[in-house]
Amino acid sequence: MTDYRPPIREMQFVLQHVVGLERLAALPGGEAVETDLVGHVLEEAGKLAADVLAPLNRVGDREPARLDNGVVRTPPGFREAYRHYVEGGWNSVPFPPDHGGQGLPWVVATAVQEMWNAANMGWALGPMLTVGAVEALAAHGTAEQKRLYLPKLVSGEWTGTMNLTEPQAGSDVGALRTRAVREGDHYRITGQKIFITYGDQDWTDNIVHLVLARLPDAPAGSRGISLFLVPKFLVRSDGSLGERNDLRVVSLEHKLGIHASPTCVMAYGDNGGAIGTLIGKENEGLACMFTMMNNMRLDVGIQGVALAERAYQHALGYARQRVQSRDLGSRSAEPVAILRHPDVRRMLMTMKALTEATRALAYSTFASLDLANRLPPGPEQAAMAARADLLTPVVKAWSTDVGCDVASLGVQIHGGMGFIEETGAAQYYRDVRITPIYEGTNGIQANDLVFRKVGRDKGVAARAFLAEIREIAVDLAAQPGDDAAVVGRALGAGHDALEGATDWIVASSEGDHRHAAASAAAYLRLFGIVAGGAMMARQICAAQRALAVQGSDSAFLETRIAVARFYADHVLSQAPALVHPIVAGATSALALDDDRF
Amino acid sequence: MTDYRPPIREMQFVLQHVVGLERLAALPGGEAVETDLVGHVLEEAGKLAADVLAPLNRVGDREPARLDNGVVRTPPGFREAYRHYVEGGWNSVPFPPDHGGQGLPWVVATAVQEMWNAANMGWALGPMLTVGAVEALAAHGTAEQKRLYLPKLVSGEWTGTMNLTEPQAGSDVGALRTRAVREGDHYRITGQKIFITYGDQDWTDNIVHLVLARLPDAPAGSRGISLFLVPKFLVRSDGSLGERNDLRVVSLEHKLGIHASPTCVMAYGDNGGAIGTLIGKENEGLACMFTMMNNMRLDVGIQGVALAERAYQHALGYARQRVQSRDLGSRSAEPVAILRHPDVRRMLMTMKALTEATRALAYSTFASLDLANRLPPGPEQAAMAARADLLTPVVKAWSTDVGCDVASLGVQIHGGMGFIEETGAAQYYRDVRITPIYEGTNGIQANDLVFRKVGRDKGVAARAFLAEIREIAVDLAAQPGDDAAVVGRALGAGHDALEGATDWIVASSEGDHRHAAASAAAYLRLFGIVAGGAMMARQICAAQRALAVQGSDSAFLETRIAVARFYADHVLSQAPALVHPIVAGATSALALDDDRF
Repeated sequence: MTDYRPPIREMQFVLQHVVGLERLAALPGGEAVETDLVGHVLEEAGKLAADVLAPLNRVGDREPARLDNGVVRTPPGFREAYRHYVEGGWNSVPFPPDHGGQGLPWVVATAVQEMWNAANMGWALGPMLTVGAVEALAAHGTAEQKRLYLPKLVSGEWTGTMNLTEPQAGSDVGALRTRAVREGDHYRITGQKIFITYGDQDWTDNIVHLVLARLPDAPAGSRGISLFLVPKFLVRSDGSLGERNDLRVVSLEHKLGIHASPTCVMAYGDNGGAIGTLIGKENEGLACMFTMMNNMRLDVGIQGVALAERAYQHALGYARQRVQSRDLGSRSAEPVAILRHPDVRRMLMTMKALTEATRALAYSTFASLDLANRLPPGPEQAAMAARADLLTPVVKAWSTDVGCDVASLGVQIHGGMGFIEETGAAQYYRDVRITPIYEGTNGIQANDLVFRKVGRDKGVAARAFLAEIREIAVDLAAQPGDDAAVVGRALGAGHDALEGATDWIVASSEGDHRHAAASAAAYLRLFGIVAGGAMMARQICAAQRALAVQGSDSAFLETRIAVARFYADHVLSQAPALVHPIVAGATSALALDDDRF
Repeated sequence: MTDYRPPIREMQFVLQHVVGLERLAALPGGEAVETDLVGHVLEEAGKLAADVLAPLNRVGDREPARLDNGVVRTPPGFREAYRHYVEGGWNSVPFPPDHGGQGLPWVVATAVQEMWNAANMGWALGPMLTVGAVEALAAHGTAEQKRLYLPKLVSGEWTGTMNLTEPQAGSDVGALRTRAVREGDHYRITGQKIFITYGDQDWTDNIVHLVLARLPDAPAGSRGISLFLVPKFLVRSDGSLGERNDLRVVSLEHKLGIHASPTCVMAYGDNGGAIGTLIGKENEGLACMFTMMNNMRLDVGIQGVALAERAYQHALGYARQRVQSRDLGSRSAEPVAILRHPDVRRMLMTMKALTEATRALAYSTFASLDLANRLPPGPEQAAMAARADLLTPVVKAWSTDVGCDVASLGVQIHGGMGFIEETGAAQYYRDVRITPIYEGTNGIQANDLVFRKVGRDKGVAARAFLAEIREIAVDLAAQPGDDAAVVGRALGAGHDALEGATDWIVASSEGDHRHAAASAAAYLRLFGIVAGGAMMARQICAAQRALAVQGSDSAFLETRIAVARFYADHVLSQAPALVHPIVAGATSALALDDDRF
């Protein structure tokens, strides 16, 4: 029941036909995207995910990470799994070859990342945090920092962490108080950080902490924060390990889910100050942080997809083997597998359709990021960068909300057994619940979408995406069959809904910000539903074209069409109704005085 | 942060103005519903809930019920709380005076029940199960059974349980295998039952198990089950306790939530057969079970309301004290309480509006049940009985789905702290997740609504409810103000949506049952949203009328109007879009062959 089957065919279909991997392959350095190679990578990653990581998922839930005399002990088997992973070269998959990486595009790395998270989210968080550290160092580190730290972070010999949050500084990182004082060529860091994922572990002999702190003379707020590299053990210039740095884990949080992942309270500088070096410039830590967090946001979106996929597979397995009640469509009184019951099928189809739509949108966003990174500067490159920027908060928030909904359906399909922890369905429900919260709550994402991604350029990027939807609709209209026609109508209505809501958002983001902020979450939801619908429409077009090819796998392709049709009937059809709460609902959302709640 | 403030004013407003308690008060025996008395009952119950039960809620989560040498030990303080409760006469509140009850109508008892559950759901489940046992015995028990058991169950001296489920018999109770063999004036019961809530406890010196079992010569399926009364200790004809019966707790389940509540695997007859007596007639246990379960379904709906209320209060408390980021509506850079942030307000308003709407609909349904019980036979009585029957699955399923959504919003408002168990928000999220599952999954409720409540009478009861909505709309149209007009439009559209969907359901429930079954959950959701909207519209009418009275509490009444307006803008406005998945979505829900999932 807890087996994980990596959905490699579905992933490849999205990569080849929905995302358009061939466009990436045609660019310089694109040989790594050659279809056979990608298939091989996915197959091998799938083995590690299914054979090594997935069996440890329940173990990590039942035997959480613990603090033992100031040292974090990860759950049984986790350390060995990490060694397998590093030895297989998996940590370096997404990184550029000049730092020892394999140079695969993000969109392929993300399919691999989805597998790690679906197999074992509590474990996968460790390597995921390293990615953020590599990104920040590669973009903003000094030559010396890169020389000493990047190769080992890329290979996975060391891991990285992100230290942003403090008790009084959550969504508002500018409120942080951790201090950094200049001392020769380095800084002394003092302060407390909370919610530090894998702040310590027993996997590697060093950990590279990226810590936001404030200089004594720094301006107030977010313009006065700087980013520091603070290793657990100091690193000598020959790369060997020196003294233990002045930092420690104070305690681990007792959480609703992801029990395997040590969420640390960290103390820096109890004995005079932890030694750190500056990344980027003084007081420009926010920009470095956004570099570090941007991909993390998409990665968290992928966690939503991953847990949705896993919850779906788990529920499907149960629905196939659990026999209960007769088949409404048969005259026989014999009980049948609950998969036969219409309401169970509806739930499974909902899970499947939402998983496929969020996956397609997330991969498509990563592909834009890859194109933005690889295309020569120019309007096309800028358009891809703008598209990735626009969709990043949508992918983060919509996929994680969907992940929670899908995991809840998974519990429901199990009936009473879903509430029993031994069944395993409840773990996904608990684990995935962090994803709408961390790396910027979904409310923060909605504000980001409304003010920075749509409002700031007065809707230019959003309207470019609407034009993309219209192109997809034209392609769809040329496809045969009732499914394409039904989806086409739903997509047209969805487009118009998103267009109308976007006009309102652009206008409102210039006026009273409170109104746009009150409607932001509903706008993001509408955006996700319509964008996901566009990806499903593209899936129909691709499947229809592939069906026309002799010898194609019609069962697989027809399933893609049926899932897209379900999505249009049950999800995309809701788009027009979401316009009213956005354009007319802010007033009632803000109607009450504080004391009347 | 974990304090519970019983929402007595909101409850009284619903009882007096939305549900129409005065109609009940005018009937014979209705003096107990006199407003002052009800207010007194709610005040006193509120004290017990807030002062005794609420402080034990976290205790029960952290120190679950456990099995100790075959005996269940409830969490610390639970036994004493139960004694308080029984000594205060609270157990007898809803029962008729001829069995020692206080004769309060269900609708008042239900407000009290909401408080117990909001304060401490894991504790409240114990007394809640006793209610089902009393109902079944009162309706179907022999004179001797009533004499020996009813007074003690009514007073709370003993508790009752419901033993339905077996490993192979969940939603399909007809598949149960527990055997009952006649032996003189009693029966010998042998078999295993699972998911038995409070199957044992350390509160009372006897427990009355109501057990479904099958006679050796019984017909197959649900027509061959009988209901038995099987006490933990046999009861002599003078009422004193005799021998220990042949039944025991095998194990307790390890659950996602309601840790305080012992969910038992029970073994009957390991040593020759537990002694039980028949309730009702042989092979007619299903009817007895429905008596027992019917109120339980509504009670579970109330649990959804209760946890929504508690999660709202908890999140509101956090939003008032957590300071983070500046106020978008102010020029000051000073951070403010997050209650000031528009997206947090939207979430709190959503929680509040959904809680008030589900409460009003649930109470209104209980009031119909009371009227059906107290009116003289005739068309009005029949109409009230039909209304209660119709709305029961809606209240059970919609309120519990809402409860889960609201508890999830509560976690979200807490940000990172919501994921930390010590905060308490996560407990509501875990606890409430059982409510869409037990007492008939929400899928079963949807089938009940579609086939038994709407299909069977060809939509007569549903259309009577639609007529009720039209009457409310007429009243609303006569009210002054923009809010009434906006809500009126939304209610009109909601009515039309529900009417169209009902026509389709009536037609479909006669044809291929699979299609109606595939659309059942969406239809129930539409029904709940529109019915809740009608109750909120009634709330506006009542508040407007009350506002016209000199000296009325305008702040309270205007808040009721603002919440109803929010509901219309953000929830009821979604009703029209739900019609498409119902009338056109069954085909795509059923499109895939089994092997293509």
